[in-house]
Amino acid sequence: MAKITSVSPLAPAAFPELPVINGVRFATVAAGVRYAGRTDVMLAELAPGTTVAGAFTRSATRAAPVLDCQAKIGTHSDAGAAIIVNSGNANAFTGRNGIEATHAVTSAVAATLGLPELRVFSSSTGVIGEPLPHERITAKLEELKAALDPGGIAAAAQAIMTTDTFAKGSTTDVTINGKTVRIAGIAKGSGMIAPDMATMLVYIFTDAKADLSVLQSMVSALNAKTFNCITVDSDTSTSDALLVAATGTSGVEVTEESVGFMEGLRRVMLDLAHQVVRDGEGATKFVEVFVTGAYSDDDANTHAKSIANSPLVKTAIAGEDPNWGRVVMAVGKSGARADRDALSIWFGPHLVADKGWVSPEYSEEAAAAYMKNQDLVIHVDLGLGGGTARVWTCDLTHGYIEINADYRS
Amino acid sequence: MAKITSVSPLAPAAFPELPVINGVRFATVAAGVRYAGRTDVMLAELAPGTTVAGAFTRSATRAAPVLDCQAKIGTHSDAGAAIIVNSGNANAFTGRNGIEATHAVTSAVAATLGLPELRVFSSSTGVIGEPLPHERITAKLEELKAALDPGGIAAAAQAIMTTDTFAKGSTTDVTINGKTVRIAGIAKGSGMIAPDMATMLVYIFTDAKADLSVLQSMVSALNAKTFNCITVDSDTSTSDALLVAATGTSGVEVTEESVGFMEGLRRVMLDLAHQVVRDGEGATKFVEVFVTGAYSDDDANTHAKSIANSPLVKTAIAGEDPNWGRVVMAVGKSGARADRDALSIWFGPHLVADKGWVSPEYSEEAAAAYMKNQDLVIHVDLGLGGGTARVWTCDLTHGYIEINADYRS
Repeated sequence: MAKITSVSPLAPAAFPELPVINGVRFATVAAGVRYAGRTDVMLAELAPGTTVAGAFTRSATRAAPVLDCQAKIGTHSDAGAAIIVNSGNANAFTGRNGIEATHAVTSAVAATLGLPELRVFSSSTGVIGEPLPHERITAKLEELKAALDPGGIAAAAQAIMTTDTFAKGSTTDVTINGKTVRIAGIAKGSGMIAPDMATMLVYIFTDAKADLSVLQSMVSALNAKTFNCITVDSDTSTSDALLVAATGTSGVEVTEESVGFMEGLRRVMLDLAHQVVRDGEGATKFVEVFVTGAYSDDDANTHAKSIANSPLVKTAIAGEDPNWGRVVMAVGKSGARADRDALSIWFGPHLVADKGWVSPEYSEEAAAAYMKNQDLVIHVDLGLGGGTARVWTCDLTHGYIEINADYRS
Repeated sequence: MAKITSVSPLAPAAFPELPVINGVRFATVAAGVRYAGRTDVMLAELAPGTTVAGAFTRSATRAAPVLDCQAKIGTHSDAGAAIIVNSGNANAFTGRNGIEATHAVTSAVAATLGLPELRVFSSSTGVIGEPLPHERITAKLEELKAALDPGGIAAAAQAIMTTDTFAKGSTTDVTINGKTVRIAGIAKGSGMIAPDMATMLVYIFTDAKADLSVLQSMVSALNAKTFNCITVDSDTSTSDALLVAATGTSGVEVTEESVGFMEGLRRVMLDLAHQVVRDGEGATKFVEVFVTGAYSDDDANTHAKSIANSPLVKTAIAGEDPNWGRVVMAVGKSGARADRDALSIWFGPHLVADKGWVSPEYSEEAAAAYMKNQDLVIHVDLGLGGGTARVWTCDLTHGYIEINADYRS
């Protein structure tokens, strides 16, 4: 397996200072699932009364732990809960053995922490098609239990990394009726250099008190506008999972009307989603594709994804080439409604194409200078209606090929 | 604009010997549309009685000549016809000016050859968003007319190239009721190194006599199984066009029942389609993705395209890595029906995944040795029904990034 030699040029300056979320304790351990010399299992223990909502990959070949989480996620319980995650092995495409391995881990965590197994959520990320050596994980559970610590979230962010080039964390405070509610989350994803899946895992914790149905509907709605709006290479993992746990320890209850909380949760989710893109394989540019004027929001999203996933658009960005012709091409092929002669395109502040033809004010020099920025915005207006979408992506570079083709497992 | 320095390693040994198709004459000229020192316009004159069928890009931002061809293609006429093609400028995203430029060219060809304008089909391929200097083409029409030659098809294949690394031709004979019918075709596409569209143009000629509706229905059906089943990078051109002209000069009439002719036409179309893939940007491997056991043919096609377009699958092939996990991932994300535990995968003769898990007979060594071949077959069986599909693609290499990112226009 190839070694990561450098941190993404798009990485944040530092891992953020994440606050303690009362009701959550973390522990990590080096269990040797696959990697040596680093932590590879994290355990999060959640206090009784915590509600847990989630969102998962829609892959038809999703991994055993994802199926297990999905079976458990909608169930209300006043018991405590736990999340256990290993890196190094995705327990994906492992048939009946995979289901048994997931059960072996979650039942052992339940026994160790005195929880119903229904309240133990697990994720696995790493190579696929190999049996998960679950006994290496269960052998460490007593050690993990003894190490549980409210301040362990940064170490947890490290333990779930596979080939990420930096650990990803985000936090925000929200004031509701004069009381403070904290939200903190961690994520992994997109720095894949072994021949595995590009998996994304996200865990967010808050001390807000939330009814399960309220929390789940917030998470589903926000997921559609954050994690479901990023793409590195159009390839969808078999293991993607997002869990949001509300411990209720702040005593502040949130409802469908808690606009401030929802906005805070959105900020944390979007920040983590952007960090995943900033760790995109081989990425040197962070790109927002902003589509307006589409016939509908769905159409806008289809156009934005088509642009963000186009290898020709992504290589043009890598080459710092204001190649708006490729954006026209991506709009044309997307299948969503478009009228060539109503279409306008901006690269940052530069109007490059105006209603179906090159803009009279277009300056190749100015646009090329803009493309040298690390963060870019491509804005496409369809001129048809009120549909809008924002999608975030990165460029396609030699680094991507190196990571995914030049090394063998 | 970057120069092509070498021919694709997947190129055929030589351009084939193409026969004269009675009723068709070709001429080429260096008009200086964009390129210097090479031919860039080809004219094909078709005898009275020729029927012309076609298929075109479904892009919503298709170029002016494509729209013009589509408006003309279904009309029956006993007059002669002509096809005029320029390389260097795609006349795409050129608004009203583009329509006027197309009209300027086709009306001048009509006047020069004494044809109705409705019978003059044109294509343009090259940079987009720049006005087509149509006067450079029309200035050469008398010269082209004087040079018309039944043996000029190989030169025509050269003149329509943009950044292709080799000219593409194919031919076959078909015997119908003891009489010989000839089919010969040329194509361009996929060797794009300037920041243009990866356009594909195909022109096929036969001396068969065919009713327009018969020819069009054959072309549409065969196109779905040939040109619509290839992909280099999932990006769809604004200029793709296929024209098939039947001159009738053999006196042999083909009907819906002419299985032999249809099979011959299929062979030529598939051969040209494969040559386009073999000239895929940066390609070092030619890959057939064969899907069986899908719930329907549509589902099979969706899975096959998802595999063939996956950057992770394509980089694994470039790395000669039998990474069947990425094939599982691509099946899972495709959106078509799949059951993880019914899924089997072969790399060539090697069964690597058997009904949802790694095959007990899988040998990494044997599979890795197979991946060193230049021509590869990935076979996926869904285990669900009778749906099948075949799609052809190439790998994703540093060459693709070099061609599309490392150079500026």
